[in-house]
Amino acid sequence: MNKPTSALTLHVDLGDRSYPIFIGQSLLAEPELVARHVTGRRAAIVTNTTVGPLYLDKLKALLQAAGKQVTTVVLPDGEEEKNWASLMQVFDTLLAEKCDRKTTMIALGGGVIGDLTGFAAASYMRGVPFIQVPTTLLSQVDSSVGGKTGINHPLGKNMIGAFYQPQAVIADTTTLDTLPDRELSAGLAEVIKHGAIIDPAFFDWIEANINQLLARDPAALAYAIQRSCEIKADVVRQDEREGGLRAILNFGHTFGHAIEAGLGYGEWLHGEAVGCGMVMAADLSYRLGFIGAATSERMKSLVKAARLPVVAPDLGRDCWLDLMEVDKKNEGGQIKFILLKPLGASVIMPVPQDALLATLEACIR
Amino acid sequence: MNKPTSALTLHVDLGDRSYPIFIGQSLLAEPELVARHVTGRRAAIVTNTTVGPLYLDKLKALLQAAGKQVTTVVLPDGEEEKNWASLMQVFDTLLAEKCDRKTTMIALGGGVIGDLTGFAAASYMRGVPFIQVPTTLLSQVDSSVGGKTGINHPLGKNMIGAFYQPQAVIADTTTLDTLPDRELSAGLAEVIKHGAIIDPAFFDWIEANINQLLARDPAALAYAIQRSCEIKADVVRQDEREGGLRAILNFGHTFGHAIEAGLGYGEWLHGEAVGCGMVMAADLSYRLGFIGAATSERMKSLVKAARLPVVAPDLGRDCWLDLMEVDKKNEGGQIKFILLKPLGASVIMPVPQDALLATLEACIR
Repeated sequence: MNKPTSALTLHVDLGDRSYPIFIGQSLLAEPELVARHVTGRRAAIVTNTTVGPLYLDKLKALLQAAGKQVTTVVLPDGEEEKNWASLMQVFDTLLAEKCDRKTTMIALGGGVIGDLTGFAAASYMRGVPFIQVPTTLLSQVDSSVGGKTGINHPLGKNMIGAFYQPQAVIADTTTLDTLPDRELSAGLAEVIKHGAIIDPAFFDWIEANINQLLARDPAALAYAIQRSCEIKADVVRQDEREGGLRAILNFGHTFGHAIEAGLGYGEWLHGEAVGCGMVMAADLSYRLGFIGAATSERMKSLVKAARLPVVAPDLGRDCWLDLMEVDKKNEGGQIKFILLKPLGASVIMPVPQDALLATLEACIR
Repeated sequence: MNKPTSALTLHVDLGDRSYPIFIGQSLLAEPELVARHVTGRRAAIVTNTTVGPLYLDKLKALLQAAGKQVTTVVLPDGEEEKNWASLMQVFDTLLAEKCDRKTTMIALGGGVIGDLTGFAAASYMRGVPFIQVPTTLLSQVDSSVGGKTGINHPLGKNMIGAFYQPQAVIADTTTLDTLPDRELSAGLAEVIKHGAIIDPAFFDWIEANINQLLARDPAALAYAIQRSCEIKADVVRQDEREGGLRAILNFGHTFGHAIEAGLGYGEWLHGEAVGCGMVMAADLSYRLGFIGAATSERMKSLVKAARLPVVAPDLGRDCWLDLMEVDKKNEGGQIKFILLKPLGASVIMPVPQDALLATLEACIR
């Protein structure tokens, strides 16, 4: 009964938690693709006030046509809404509508909706199935792969959450047509990251194709998403719960999280903070002799070409150090950084305070 | 370096999530038993205003003597405090004190503290290790085995949570000396349940020893705890995430949860509601012809002998049905009940409405 899909399918191999990622144009127009991953009678779609008006009715109709009873929750949009109040709004609705533990939750939106809905699915009645339908480049290349879910706490980003894998990820690249330029650039930050930490040839390809990506060339975007998901899935497969290797995916994030927390969530987009954070991490890698000055400049140029910020906000030295200290990668009281050694490979290590301060000094100017 | 312990040790066999349960007198007086399960430098003890004054200083001193840095959180006591506000108080403290992801959380208290701390451990930075130190009979025989963690929602008990296994459970039976009589009886409800659903010989033993148990005879209590943990661990081993068999552990709980929610959490103790719920489930089993009238009476007599309520509160028929409908065991829109068929064995099934109404009618009088 299922129509053959034109989507490219990747498999994230995690034993009995394995799942497929579908990448392609107009996947939300295919009548069966989402519905066949809803195993029970009921689905609960969580979306926001920006994405909802664009795609919610369509997705709801598809599911209803497949005989599913559909509950919907529309949350306010924004990183600052990735909090307990939004999570409670989801639980309140699920319970008021008596959703049972076989209800499949569907995240329709970007990373905030995906992370929050994933954590809601992990926690509702101690776990219900869920499907990711990422509608931003950032969430298609990053947060829909890897099972990290969660919400922010006033004292730190993603501090409350779970590792919880979806049943399927459906990345409809047509949804990127409605994405604001600023968010497209934010998504490119994570694409660049995947090249920088693990695949120098992909980094080269991004440099060569940055204008096509910014111009939303469908083939270029599809390749960038595919390669990013492959790289991330491969890392996650080796280290699902971030015991070691997986931490390299946080390249640029220790600085980036400090920027987000220091300015207040939502001031900079996550991808913007990560873009700037990668420039800082490359600078730190250079100061420690792991990459040359030219490579550090290459990173800065590519981040800039992607229309992302390369100058860090001046939060004040003590505030910077304090914000980085509480980051989750801080273990046993010592801040660890993910550094390039060289471009296309990475190391995780504590760094001398003077090098860190020099990087802060250099990147804030 | 570890002193040999006089504790009885059970192993809960869950593959790489296996853990030991230690049962015995004065275990909190042993210098190394708790500390050796704290693998990192830091521990965070969560307790309440009732248990804290009795055991917190002692446990904290033991851990500090073993070189651990100890954070403490003292929550208000009571089932009505098993909510998001208490959970946030834990997260607020952990983050304010910059606890890292290698911090071991320790639940020192009864089921509320255990469930809440377990969920905090499951969710803090997407999961940190935790140890259960149950100090009530109920938590020693029930909530410390099986990995169910969570908090209540105004619309339902334990609606938000996770399956998350501890590193170890340390059940110091000496802590039962300070337990109020009413809570001792509440714990016996779950002991009776374990006999009723799976082990008729244990049910006989409880009938024969109910007075020794109420008199807190140490040998009788130790055996009741041991056999309860064995039975529950065996069920959980076969069905960790409650896909099927494990649901039998909810015997009496569909009625019991309705009582707790209908009266407001904390009005009846959980064990009191389960005790009455078992009488109702036995009555329903009798009405469906699965057990005889004499067996239904045996259940009622034993629950009464344990000084637990056997007459259900009159919540009103519609309220009863509504409260049972939202129970987590309700799947696909149909209420399922765990019934005795016969005593010492159980079945899970939907029931005819008229039999259910007859049971409500009979048990509310």
